[in-house]
Amino acid sequence: MKLITYHHAGQEALGAVREDGVVTLSSLASSMLALIDGGPTLLAQARELVAQAHSTIPLDQVTLLAPIPRPRKNIICLGRNYAAHAIESLRAIGQPEQLPSHPLFFSKAPTAVTHPNAVIPLMPEISAQRDWEVELAVIIWLPARHVSKADALDYVFGYTILNDISARDLQSRHQQFFFSKSLDGAAPMGPWIVTSDELPNPHNLRIQLRLNGATMQDANTSQMIFDIPTCIAILTSGLTLEPGDIIATGTPSGVGLGMTPQRWLQAGEVLECEVEGIGVLRNPVA
Amino acid sequence: MKLITYHHAGQEALGAVREDGVVTLSSLASSMLALIDGGPTLLAQARELVAQAHSTIPLDQVTLLAPIPRPRKNIICLGRNYAAHAIESLRAIGQPEQLPSHPLFFSKAPTAVTHPNAVIPLMPEISAQRDWEVELAVIIWLPARHVSKADALDYVFGYTILNDISARDLQSRHQQFFFSKSLDGAAPMGPWIVTSDELPNPHNLRIQLRLNGATMQDANTSQMIFDIPTCIAILTSGLTLEPGDIIATGTPSGVGLGMTPQRWLQAGEVLECEVEGIGVLRNPVA
Repeated sequence: MKLITYHHAGQEALGAVREDGVVTLSSLASSMLALIDGGPTLLAQARELVAQAHSTIPLDQVTLLAPIPRPRKNIICLGRNYAAHAIESLRAIGQPEQLPSHPLFFSKAPTAVTHPNAVIPLMPEISAQRDWEVELAVIIWLPARHVSKADALDYVFGYTILNDISARDLQSRHQQFFFSKSLDGAAPMGPWIVTSDELPNPHNLRIQLRLNGATMQDANTSQMIFDIPTCIAILTSGLTLEPGDIIATGTPSGVGLGMTPQRWLQAGEVLECEVEGIGVLRNPVA
Repeated sequence: MKLITYHHAGQEALGAVREDGVVTLSSLASSMLALIDGGPTLLAQARELVAQAHSTIPLDQVTLLAPIPRPRKNIICLGRNYAAHAIESLRAIGQPEQLPSHPLFFSKAPTAVTHPNAVIPLMPEISAQRDWEVELAVIIWLPARHVSKADALDYVFGYTILNDISARDLQSRHQQFFFSKSLDGAAPMGPWIVTSDELPNPHNLRIQLRLNGATMQDANTSQMIFDIPTCIAILTSGLTLEPGDIIATGTPSGVGLGMTPQRWLQAGEVLECEVEGIGVLRNPVA
């Protein structure tokens, strides 16, 4: 299923996208988090409701929101998790071009989350180096602690796209990544969550970013240094992942930081993030 | 006021500590976050209720919980925010002994929060280098964006103590601090929130940590490199702080990482964090 959070007729609601339009799931769950919390039983009910529904709303008549508009904690993100991106980044900041031997985990504030088509504020008063990063994002389904790599994908509810908008000048200045990655509006997410049954192998998906229509990033999720099971196993060796947690799995090469000359976002530009099997997340910049 | 979240007679409740015991505030607010959300009006009502209450519960008959047992997002933390600690840390990891020119912000997961007197799990299977860090923690009261240094303290609800338990081996290995600081139970907090009216100057408080009764850290909050108004001003230049947000302001020197030989926590040891004007946060380790 393609599950959405949407706004229609003055209300925020949970829904699913069918070929012929949006089926509302409001009778089943008040929000995406409530659906996730409901586990396999509630998801099976949603699937049945979607299969049987007679009426739909045309997709172009609803406003898509981030599938989880307000996560219950910060988004867990991976830094330098594609080799070519790790190299382009380290070269750009003058550090040894050495791949990480363990994943870099940082976080983005939930206040940074924004919607498909929402304008990303550039904030030139504090940063002159805003950059893009298309990422496959994993949505956790079940409470997870001490989970093996072999079992890890059983804990995944589904997948969406996250654009990990970054402020490179702030990132260098403050060393730890939290602030430079957490500016308001710096986490566009969506357009929907594709449930994990429809993406049994999340590690063979083409992942792309276009800036004003020109392809800047074009890679495959098979190129992650630390795959999703590895990240879940490491994280849950020490902490508890919870239903609705979001893990953004890092970006491939082709960010503005790595270009010669470097290339920063400008007002009026448009970003499109695409992941095979999920869809396109589009956001203008202003 | 000293505001607590406590457990008594099978119920979690909000209360205030008076000389003669605990006054319940359950009739006013269901939780500390609800009280914070209520703004100045609700806090004034709480103050009146505490002044007039006739019956109290003896403090030793309640179980103190973390004042905010489940924050709505990760705790924002400062790294290397006391000069002597920055130097001891950088020396220990073999990096240039240079003070940060901008604050290092990272985050701790809300799942790491634990209570006064709760046992901190050592997790020897993943870390052999667990360390302590006493910190003054700031609780945000009002939504804050573009706040000047001059106005910053008006946005503060109160203060508590946080022990930023760290896993030094994981901290080096994973580079970004999130994972090594977010293990389950690695954020003991409390014993209560002292409202900001009772601590008009949070930058002249003795701050100490004792390990098995021996003083390991002993400094003053006047020694912060980036004071609370500076941190709030920088953060809110780019992101929105919200009611109930927690900012842990960094630790002074005297951590195990900086000692020769280095000194790591062992099962059976007891940590006591003390901040003048607030109180003592005690936690055993196992």
